Amino acid sequence: MNLLITGSAGFIGSHLVERFLAEGHTLVGVDNYISGQRRNTELFLAHPGFRFIQADVSHGLPYGGPGLDWVLHFASPASPPHYQQHPIETLMVGAQGTQHALDLAHRHGAKFMLASTSEVYGDPHVHPQPETYWGNVNPNGPRSCYDEAKRYAEAITMAYHHHKGLDTRIIRIFNTYGPRMRADDGRVVTNFINQALEGKPLTVYGDGSQTRSFQFVDDLVEGIVRLMQVTYHQPVNLGNPDEYSILQFAQIIRDRINPTLNIVFEPMPQDDPKQRKPDITIARELLEWQPQTDLSTGITATIAYFQPSLTR
Amino acid sequence: MNLLITGSAGFIGSHLVERFLAEGHTLVGVDNYISGQRRNTELFLAHPGFRFIQADVSHGLPYGGPGLDWVLHFASPASPPHYQQHPIETLMVGAQGTQHALDLAHRHGAKFMLASTSEVYGDPHVHPQPETYWGNVNPNGPRSCYDEAKRYAEAITMAYHHHKGLDTRIIRIFNTYGPRMRADDGRVVTNFINQALEGKPLTVYGDGSQTRSFQFVDDLVEGIVRLMQVTYHQPVNLGNPDEYSILQFAQIIRDRINPTLNIVFEPMPQDDPKQRKPDITIARELLEWQPQTDLSTGITATIAYFQPSLTR
Repeated sequence: MNLLITGSAGFIGSHLVERFLAEGHTLVGVDNYISGQRRNTELFLAHPGFRFIQADVSHGLPYGGPGLDWVLHFASPASPPHYQQHPIETLMVGAQGTQHALDLAHRHGAKFMLASTSEVYGDPHVHPQPETYWGNVNPNGPRSCYDEAKRYAEAITMAYHHHKGLDTRIIRIFNTYGPRMRADDGRVVTNFINQALEGKPLTVYGDGSQTRSFQFVDDLVEGIVRLMQVTYHQPVNLGNPDEYSILQFAQIIRDRINPTLNIVFEPMPQDDPKQRKPDITIARELLEWQPQTDLSTGITATIAYFQPSLTR
Repeated sequence: MNLLITGSAGFIGSHLVERFLAEGHTLVGVDNYISGQRRNTELFLAHPGFRFIQADVSHGLPYGGPGLDWVLHFASPASPPHYQQHPIETLMVGAQGTQHALDLAHRHGAKFMLASTSEVYGDPHVHPQPETYWGNVNPNGPRSCYDEAKRYAEAITMAYHHHKGLDTRIIRIFNTYGPRMRADDGRVVTNFINQALEGKPLTVYGDGSQTRSFQFVDDLVEGIVRLMQVTYHQPVNLGNPDEYSILQFAQIIRDRINPTLNIVFEPMPQDDPKQRKPDITIARELLEWQPQTDLSTGITATIAYFQPSLTR
């Protein structure tokens, strides 16, 4: 197959590139490096199956190569510090960016996948969240540049499916971690790893009993590959429903990096992200998929990325 | 003042044109006639203060005239039959269209108003709806091309306010009726008027006890004018909280047009629009505004538009 991936230099995009190249496909990666990293492009530049276009998909997709089988739209700032720093770019890549990617797929008769997010559920009143839950999202708050951009992206993807006959997929990605996350991602896994690698105490907000669900990136990639092999146009949750306490994350990371470090407790900030947990019934039944990587394995692989010497 | 109004040939846009011209302002109207009507432009073409540009605001705003004090973004298909016929255009005028209008306002140092909608509340779980309610909207259903486009438009308007310092207003317009509605609007007031003018029985779905709130367009225009005179950036509901039963609408319209017509009852369709009722506390307190036009007066004026001979 010949695939085009927007956001190819991002955390998840780069893992898709790796997987598809390993399977013998040819790939065009597109990124503008607003939040993607050049090192994620450089990893694959020597591969004969990989070609890279530096472009802002919000302003067009300058692809003039051979026919495409798939367009995978993964471009967007995705962590709160990044999208709040670039709110208008985040809104644009959800609207104009998604539409340019849809139009490219339509011109090529290619299939299309949208990387949506658990953020479309907002601050949910239903736990865990099935795909049929409509969400509870503030349309004009500090997170709305991302949340509403992704909801819009879903809406226009379905409009292209229903009105232009495009063969589309929508995945809603829940919290994901692994190698090639940005160190400044701002979420708990990278925060703890960075603190520990710098020899600082790990900061837990609140008493640490609040839980989070994180899926390891390899599990997400497997779910994506499987969804490409079936025909299903409604959104599909891909996430890990297993919850761990924040304190467990801190302890596992601390113990891998430096067991002598302290864990310190600070008051919970007001805007602490709300809890989400995927209902993955559809992915289980449709894709025979569920996360396979235990937290300890995943954390070890992630630390190895940030500090290879620790795990060699 | 010098104002630019997108959607100037639409139902509400044309009433704004009329009001601002009457107040001695100069106006540029923009419309692409997807759902606007040429007759609404022709009404004002002879006025020296009015200029019209036929353009699709989703593809740019080709305005090169003198400085602007306000950009009012009212362009969009707004009734379900229209936006479902043009889902991609509806999504685009919410995203690209809103952004072109925001950019124009920003270039001119003009203030900006977004016409949003009660549809951002979706199928609400809170009655009546205050502006702080986040709504219950399906991101990928048949109405989502309109609902999500408007939620996105609110999000990008707030992003321009917070990150580019634009002086913005957001109104959420609840059901509105009056002269210059399209006959094929598809909502209950025009449906009943059309049936009665054609001498047909008026069709009520269900037993007619279900209620609707409709504001007369002059009341809406007054609220808009007042909001332009204060500084307030959060969304403001503009609607009529008084509820009437569907049967009352049918009876008033029937009695004005032809009291001998029958009212017939049909089973309620599955997708009957859900009920919404505005909480107008903010408009009352901030603008000292509330609807002034009683239903009988408003209906008479609306019938006069569709069949002038009946009310002369």
